[in-house]
Amino acid sequence: MSQDKSIDKSMATLIPIAEAEGIDTPWDRYEKMQPQCGFGELGICCRICWKGPCRIDPFGNGPDRGICGATADVIVARNLIRMQAAGAAAHSEHGRHIALAMKHVGDEGLEAYRIKDEAKLLKVAETLDIDVEEKSSQEIASEVARISLDDFRNQDHKKGCTWITKTLPSERIERLKKAGVLPHNIDAAIANIMARTHVGCDSDHINLLMGGIRGALADYNGMVLATELSDVLFGTPAPTISKANLGVLKEGAVNIALHGHNPLLSEVICDMAMLMNDSAIDAGAPEGINVVGICCTGNEVMMRHGIPLATNYLSQELAILTGAVDSMVVDVQCIMPSIATAGKCYHTEVITTMPDNKITGARHVEFSEEDALERAREIVTLSIEAFKKRDPKRINIPKVKETAIVGFSVEAIIGALTHVNAKDPLKPLIDAIVSGEIKGVALFAGCNNVKVKQDHAYRTMVKELLKRDVLVLATGCGAGAYAKDGMMTQNAAEEYAGKSLLGVLTAVGTAAGLGGPLPPVLHMGSCVDNSRAVQLASALANALDKDLSDLPVVASAPELMSEKAVAIGSWAVALGLPTHVGVMPQITGAPGVVKALTEDVKDIFGGFFIPETDPVKAADKLYDEILERRKSLGLFT
Amino acid sequence: MSQDKSIDKSMATLIPIAEAEGIDTPWDRYEKMQPQCGFGELGICCRICWKGPCRIDPFGNGPDRGICGATADVIVARNLIRMQAAGAAAHSEHGRHIALAMKHVGDEGLEAYRIKDEAKLLKVAETLDIDVEEKSSQEIASEVARISLDDFRNQDHKKGCTWITKTLPSERIERLKKAGVLPHNIDAAIANIMARTHVGCDSDHINLLMGGIRGALADYNGMVLATELSDVLFGTPAPTISKANLGVLKEGAVNIALHGHNPLLSEVICDMAMLMNDSAIDAGAPEGINVVGICCTGNEVMMRHGIPLATNYLSQELAILTGAVDSMVVDVQCIMPSIATAGKCYHTEVITTMPDNKITGARHVEFSEEDALERAREIVTLSIEAFKKRDPKRINIPKVKETAIVGFSVEAIIGALTHVNAKDPLKPLIDAIVSGEIKGVALFAGCNNVKVKQDHAYRTMVKELLKRDVLVLATGCGAGAYAKDGMMTQNAAEEYAGKSLLGVLTAVGTAAGLGGPLPPVLHMGSCVDNSRAVQLASALANALDKDLSDLPVVASAPELMSEKAVAIGSWAVALGLPTHVGVMPQITGAPGVVKALTEDVKDIFGGFFIPETDPVKAADKLYDEILERRKSLGLFT
Repeated sequence: MSQDKSIDKSMATLIPIAEAEGIDTPWDRYEKMQPQCGFGELGICCRICWKGPCRIDPFGNGPDRGICGATADVIVARNLIRMQAAGAAAHSEHGRHIALAMKHVGDEGLEAYRIKDEAKLLKVAETLDIDVEEKSSQEIASEVARISLDDFRNQDHKKGCTWITKTLPSERIERLKKAGVLPHNIDAAIANIMARTHVGCDSDHINLLMGGIRGALADYNGMVLATELSDVLFGTPAPTISKANLGVLKEGAVNIALHGHNPLLSEVICDMAMLMNDSAIDAGAPEGINVVGICCTGNEVMMRHGIPLATNYLSQELAILTGAVDSMVVDVQCIMPSIATAGKCYHTEVITTMPDNKITGARHVEFSEEDALERAREIVTLSIEAFKKRDPKRINIPKVKETAIVGFSVEAIIGALTHVNAKDPLKPLIDAIVSGEIKGVALFAGCNNVKVKQDHAYRTMVKELLKRDVLVLATGCGAGAYAKDGMMTQNAAEEYAGKSLLGVLTAVGTAAGLGGPLPPVLHMGSCVDNSRAVQLASALANALDKDLSDLPVVASAPELMSEKAVAIGSWAVALGLPTHVGVMPQITGAPGVVKALTEDVKDIFGGFFIPETDPVKAADKLYDEILERRKSLGLFT
Repeated sequence: MSQDKSIDKSMATLIPIAEAEGIDTPWDRYEKMQPQCGFGELGICCRICWKGPCRIDPFGNGPDRGICGATADVIVARNLIRMQAAGAAAHSEHGRHIALAMKHVGDEGLEAYRIKDEAKLLKVAETLDIDVEEKSSQEIASEVARISLDDFRNQDHKKGCTWITKTLPSERIERLKKAGVLPHNIDAAIANIMARTHVGCDSDHINLLMGGIRGALADYNGMVLATELSDVLFGTPAPTISKANLGVLKEGAVNIALHGHNPLLSEVICDMAMLMNDSAIDAGAPEGINVVGICCTGNEVMMRHGIPLATNYLSQELAILTGAVDSMVVDVQCIMPSIATAGKCYHTEVITTMPDNKITGARHVEFSEEDALERAREIVTLSIEAFKKRDPKRINIPKVKETAIVGFSVEAIIGALTHVNAKDPLKPLIDAIVSGEIKGVALFAGCNNVKVKQDHAYRTMVKELLKRDVLVLATGCGAGAYAKDGMMTQNAAEEYAGKSLLGVLTAVGTAAGLGGPLPPVLHMGSCVDNSRAVQLASALANALDKDLSDLPVVASAPELMSEKAVAIGSWAVALGLPTHVGVMPQITGAPGVVKALTEDVKDIFGGFFIPETDPVKAADKLYDEILERRKSLGLFT
């Protein structure tokens, strides 16, 4: 039954089609995978060397140590921090890619890219303490890129990475330094984790976990630079009205689904699609080219250009089952290899573009910044050609489409608040928090996971928190879930926000010229854009002369699955936030690790993990934490 | 029965003691771990995201894809290349540590370190094309360190790492470039592997494996710089006569066992032990301080100072069961956490020293280059104090001690050959290979693994190859095995070397003033010193104007277990060597990966993997490869 699998209404159309066509979905593969390995679920399986695999008996009747003598705590901690390393690597490779492209733009120029947002460039330069006097934009961009790349180069262990140091409250930086977890170099932090988890290295789970936190903070560093530099190159998001869910596909258009994470690819394809619109019409698509997004690439182009969002992680291959996706063009991360198989069952061209991210069975059109336009033209042409091969009888576009008001970068939020108080735009927000009109702020981030009903925990938790006047920010597949679910509309504000929260949303929305409230869930972007939420929280902390851990701000990844989400959750904890995870982390075979991450870290960072699979209880717990922090601030309303 | 577990004669004494005392050995823990997970053994278990764990059914009755759609080939390739990344990280962190220390020595000086080998410094400077005119040694050292650190910093993907580029034959570099696997930056290669193996990234096993090879070559780069810079700081090894096996422990001395990998620690402790010898005598140890080595630290100090080698990987905690180890001082890698437990059963102080490599339950004395002497004094003092707590009734030092002639750096080998032909020292070696007096060269490297009888495959294979006139080099735990087994003596040459090989060994040994043959197994050092073997092979290739893959040179890791060994084996293949692994690699659930690594890579690199668990068959296969290569060179004798 599709309703056991997803709350996404499109799935009610498409899952039965998958069944009828005999095409596997992630849910089918999940079912076939049962029972999943209990050792793996508990984290107590070690495959770090070839004396193993070793497994600890969670019931105490079998081995309590690996062959080398590693305890459950050591095994679990090693496995966990390697996940943090991988998450940091993924986000930071993306960040480095953007920084290298910006360096290219600044140094010699690139045909397909330019500095689209000069104001943001100056803001970034200010953040990085770059003297901009008598420098051209290109020169400043080069300097920004150089300093950003230094965060991958610095070999002085005593000098923290620049981006993290320049964007967090100074009190927090001191705290991270004191704990010995301030990364000095992103790549080095990743290599350090891989080295210390090698067989016979770090065998103290607390020490390991601290190394992992350093890697997670390197993840933050990579993503903040990815986000800020992307804004410079592609524009800072501003509120825009778009649509979401698979109903955004158009039967009369060449549908190109952009999927992955890195705007370097998607931006150029968006540009090229506009240029080649007539070719699509000539090919028999009366509505020309319809670019839609999936996952975080979807969020990136939605935030910047209002491109509609087709779907989020778990239903990516179901998009192909509409029979209307002519090409799915992917770059990096969270791209199920199964889309190549699904594509072969339809006319869909599945096109990989990045040299280090291919899929066996997919077409590969290798993209690089230097020949971006040429490759984008090739990809759009392939899409139009595929359109011609469509089977009209197999088109099943679900009639599900929601309005989504998106684009809430920090700049956009402050821009809206400026309409309320031009002189001190943060004041209305602070006042609302102090008065209790807004009780606190919750950030929803992370993935979908087949272990929980798709998008369900997002929906359940947000409703619980909105009615209690908590302001909600969302990114990544969380943002996708809310966009698809109609939670980014003015109606949703009226329907779900508590009275006093609605008052604030309406005041700001009206002042900003929206003729009504802001949506109750503010779409802040892709998963690297979680850094935007940190920027907002840091601005609040600085304005109040407080640390991040003092604020009534919480985070949640109710449906997490990826190593990136593990890294994000970990830096959220290190930045001081109570951080909910809605899928049981694969650490529960190690009591010491569980205690460290749910209790002991609190003393070090202020933040801690709250594992809770029941979304209503999770919302309660987060709300309690908000109230707790309000109390500590002397706010009793 | 100890003889089922190890051929090391010491184990016949110590394993029964472990049984009697109820102390677990690695073999006990191995037994308790049975049956080991079959999915893990085949590599077809994926724990990369929290939708899983996923497992592929090797019999084809269950899942053939993970929940994301990843095939067995993708799952296995991802797991494998993460091992390569971890191996590269471990070796390279060691290399970076040395480079940073050298920078420190060069820039401002360090109390505990200096440039001990000026000749090597100049040789390294020449290798790196550094202009040494009018530069002080310190200035040259700074420059060497800076260039070495650039291999961790360079962001230009088109520029290969300096060390690899400068130390391999140009033909090989071109081949690596063409295959797209020349690393431009060690850390970046590691981060790249972690990023591309994140969920939903690279899903093409060939592409993944190539990324892994790039990481493995970064491993080579890290280890060659570790070795060469260590020689500058601590001296280039030269032939020296030492002893090996646990009989080197002395009842009448304070026994300090140095264990791990990084000479930065062990060198200073060796120095301090000499200085504090009288304190030990005063404390009641008539023979003063007796420093012994374990694993690769053991190899490092044995090669440079003739410090005796106590044991290798698998028997490390058994050393404590002699009751005569007063302290076991460890730094990084291959240190079983079980030594802390064993230490607690005796008077032994187990002391960890590196901030990122602690062991729960061990004493931690944090070491840094800046306060090296002070910390070394503290460690030696702790060792003397521990000596006082010895229980004389529990002392059981096995009466097993072999002579070992060690110290065969490339410089030492060429030095010996100079006595035969001063003008062209490589000529005698080349002539012997051409004439067939030496049929080829085999490098034995890698670990111990509880899955095979300790040191047994080393012994079996070497005897097979020596009698067929193959010159044998050894490093790491392989070298340890041979040293303990009496294979590094002149007698062993006479006993095991084929007639014509013995002739060459005798000619060179006699000319070099050894009054008899060289040992039949040349100890080249620790596992980072595998780069020495590459330097020798490269010198031969350059002299012959050939590529490495043309030479009758093979490699073997008969008892491998660590990720470092996986990385080493992988770069050996990428450098063109037929490379034997004697423990079944955990990849066999993926036919595509197996084919790629055992067959397809041959066309790309000339090298390939030979998995073979029977040591006699393995020796046969390697010998066949040697003959094959001789034939290709037109050498039919």
